[in-house]
Amino acid sequence: PYQRQPHDFFLREDIREELHKKADATRQVLPNSQLPTVSNHYHSLVPLDTPRSGANFFGNYVSWVYKATSKKNGHTYCLRRLQGLRLNNVESVRGIQSWKRISNGNVVSVIECFTSRDFSDNSLVFIHNYHPLSKTLAEHHFNTAQGSRYTRQFSVPESILWSYICQICNALKAIHAEKLAARCIDASKVILTDKNRVRLGGCAILDVLDYESTQPLVDMQQEDFIQLGRLILSIGTNTPALGSPQTVIPQSALEQFGRTYSVELRERVIWLLSRPSPQETAQKNILELACGLSSHFVDCFDTSLHAQDEVNSNLMRELENGRIARLVMKLGTINERPEFDNDPSWSENGERYQLKLFRDYVFHQVDSSGHPVLDLGHMISSLNKLDAGIDERIHLASRDNQTVFVVSYKELKKMVANCFNELAKPHGKQASRGF
Amino acid sequence: PYQRQPHDFFLREDIREELHKKADATRQVLPNSQLPTVSNHYHSLVPLDTPRSGANFFGNYVSWVYKATSKKNGHTYCLRRLQGLRLNNVESVRGIQSWKRISNGNVVSVIECFTSRDFSDNSLVFIHNYHPLSKTLAEHHFNTAQGSRYTRQFSVPESILWSYICQICNALKAIHAEKLAARCIDASKVILTDKNRVRLGGCAILDVLDYESTQPLVDMQQEDFIQLGRLILSIGTNTPALGSPQTVIPQSALEQFGRTYSVELRERVIWLLSRPSPQETAQKNILELACGLSSHFVDCFDTSLHAQDEVNSNLMRELENGRIARLVMKLGTINERPEFDNDPSWSENGERYQLKLFRDYVFHQVDSSGHPVLDLGHMISSLNKLDAGIDERIHLASRDNQTVFVVSYKELKKMVANCFNELAKPHGKQASRGF
Ligand SMILES: Nc1ncnc2c1ncn2[C@@H]1O[C@H](COP(=O)(O)OP(=O)(O)OP(=O)(O)O)[C@@H](O)[C@H]1O
Ligand SMILES: Nc1ncnc2c1ncn2[C@@H]1O[C@H](COP(=O)(O)OP(=O)(O)OP(=O)(O)O)[C@@H](O)[C@H]1O
Ligand SMILES: [Mg+2]
Ligand SMILES: [Mg+2]
Repeated sequence: PYQRQPHDFFLREDIREELHKKADATRQVLPNSQLPTVSNHYHSLVPLDTPRSGANFFGNYVSWVYKATSKKNGHTYCLRRLQGLRLNNVESVRGIQSWKRISNGNVVSVIECFTSRDFSDNSLVFIHNYHPLSKTLAEHHFNTAQGSRYTRQFSVPESILWSYICQICNALKAIHAEKLAARCIDASKVILTDKNRVRLGGCAILDVLDYESTQPLVDMQQEDFIQLGRLILSIGTNTPALGSPQTVIPQSALEQFGRTYSVELRERVIWLLSRPSPQETAQKNILELACGLSSHFVDCFDTSLHAQDEVNSNLMRELENGRIARLVMKLGTINERPEFDNDPSWSENGERYQLKLFRDYVFHQVDSSGHPVLDLGHMISSLNKLDAGIDERIHLASRDNQTVFVVSYKELKKMVANCFNELAKPHGKQASRGF
Repeated sequence: PYQRQPHDFFLREDIREELHKKADATRQVLPNSQLPTVSNHYHSLVPLDTPRSGANFFGNYVSWVYKATSKKNGHTYCLRRLQGLRLNNVESVRGIQSWKRISNGNVVSVIECFTSRDFSDNSLVFIHNYHPLSKTLAEHHFNTAQGSRYTRQFSVPESILWSYICQICNALKAIHAEKLAARCIDASKVILTDKNRVRLGGCAILDVLDYESTQPLVDMQQEDFIQLGRLILSIGTNTPALGSPQTVIPQSALEQFGRTYSVELRERVIWLLSRPSPQETAQKNILELACGLSSHFVDCFDTSLHAQDEVNSNLMRELENGRIARLVMKLGTINERPEFDNDPSWSENGERYQLKLFRDYVFHQVDSSGHPVLDLGHMISSLNKLDAGIDERIHLASRDNQTVFVVSYKELKKMVANCFNELAKPHGKQASRGF
């Protein structure tokens, strides 16, 4: 019952690799950085982009994006600085209030917004959640690094475009329901945070910049639909310029799109791009879009369920790691301790001696030729049994092979608890911080 | 930067608990069981139900459900035995063929079907995927254990009912697209496999039993809608009998339902229950249902994304724990090794000596009074730095305090690799299995 197949122990290598890279990216710091600590709160800034001069997405302000660590909770955040922005009205930062109520799987959560002089100027700073190793859809599809653009040999599969539409529809449902408009549906502001997941980054920023604007909400919400249509059209035809509100969309682009994709998708893009004529009063609304997408939403939903199942099963495999790590560190505090309570032989006597031999049993196995046997499966299995405290008995031989202890995992588990508590006792409960 | 808060180290206790229970349930065996091995393939059967005589869901055959382990791949499956069933036509088992093509997050996957004499009779055996600790919706909502039923104080929340409808709609979309009908939408055949996940169990069984039947597919598909309506109505009114096709649905039940739930939900149930009159040719179809549910599908989708995010972050956390555990175990194989390569002082010399002192630095810290400092945060932080091999230098003092080594994590990381590889070398690559 406690046997686990070795292949069951470990995650698939590519999944582990990707998650490790994300963990590493989250922990990355620049040792000799000149970047400031912001608001005496966000530190260890690591740049996530290199601003080019020219077209700025947010007004005329150059934006710099960093990974930053919070001094208060140690978590990592995405910090966006709008350079040289002096707020006329300090109340503007309230523009993010409604946004803080939105918790949606396709919207990067907005944390806070404040002015800062830590960059030696007046800057406006936005804090969003950080999603390690994200790429913008522009970086992913247009690959316009250093201004070069190669012609994609293969067009983006239709299923991906439907997935984008559904996910952004999910985002807009939450956003429009809060009486807001996204206003940032652009290939450079939609980020790919996982293989099949996009999120609207850069939300709330224009709400602060345009705090005193009187543009009607319904107009801005209609623009969201049009921008979504432009986004899909630009990706489907590999023509970044079509994403920009200023670009006139030529008929040829729609025709090119129609040659590559289904009638249904083309019709949907046309619907998104349409502006109702002055006689028509009907505006597009998000529930209407959702209804038109319903078959695709069912597919997205099922895909998401499959992804959940996979991650859940991966989690079950790695589940015991925290407990194993804690246990093996506990053993580390006990084994070979130079001295305790003024007794230099503390770790060699009594229960500690048996735990020393148990450590040998787990980590110092040799085969008949005396060669080390380094079997992670054996180590994990033994530690699992120790953690569970089962009745199975094992033989622990002393190093000179003169003595053999026959002891159960249940008894060994008690010994670990006794010895560790003995170490912790002098300081009371706080002594074993975190264990 | 390499600080992880101790509270971040471990999975939330309730999540760990639940996953542990599922793992235990999967591994459970009955030591003195009389149950047979089936087809020389499925062994270690553990009963999942206790058949009561009386109403059998599958024809007149008593069904027994077991957890079973496959001899071929070690995986666990759900084995259902229909007792005393002699197949007239051996081709009937082909009834599951189309079902094997279905891979849907809300359908329990069908694996195989065969006849068996291993239960000392003629039995028909179905193998489905196993979902540990599942409960049927009947067990969950009606709680009819031992025939007792208590009046629920609180009605099932509307959001749960919408979630059931959407999930079963997802299942039906896949099933109807394969030219099949579910035929098992019943509270005893829909299982709750996770907090927010239902799946149709028992699929494919009636397809085999009725292999030679000529009932038109479209009629059976229409019955799926009606049965779904009955299921929701019965749960919403806490009246199990309404789930049965034979029960006439009184107007009072619909009125009771309408008092508890929204107009929209009541209308949807009525739609599901409706039978088109002979003049109407329009049958219900699944895309029509999906469209009517579109707003709720968006909600289900978003809920699923949030669940994915949570499991993903738990997985990342446990992965990092795995890294730490593996590193500590590597150190364990090196530190205090009784001997290596016929050299009993191997672990006391050279690089191993510095790693011994490093182990002291991590695990054997004391304060000024000589009391042990058991700080998990310090241990995790040091091990993370070791794993990353950063440039930071630390002072390692010998036990007699006569020597101090100043060494970087980068150098220590190399030492661990060298020493471990030395241990692994005699056997070549396989020696360090799993590391
Ligand atoms: N919330 C976030 N978490 C992690 N990375 C992010 C986040 N938001 C953006 N990024 C990353 O930061 C980088 C810069 O983003 P940014 O929005 O500035 O786009 P850009 O390509 O630099 O366009 P622009 O010209 O508008 O600045 C991108 O690589 C993006 O993936
Ligand atoms: N695929 C499965 N994986 C795990 N457990 C399952 C699976 N299918 C069913 N079960 C469990 O097996 C038990 C019996 O299921 P079964 O379908 O026989 O329902 P029942 O309540 O016994 O009704 P019936 O009277 O029709 O037999 C239930 O507790 C159910 O949760
Ligand atoms: Mg930028
Ligand atoms: Mg049963």
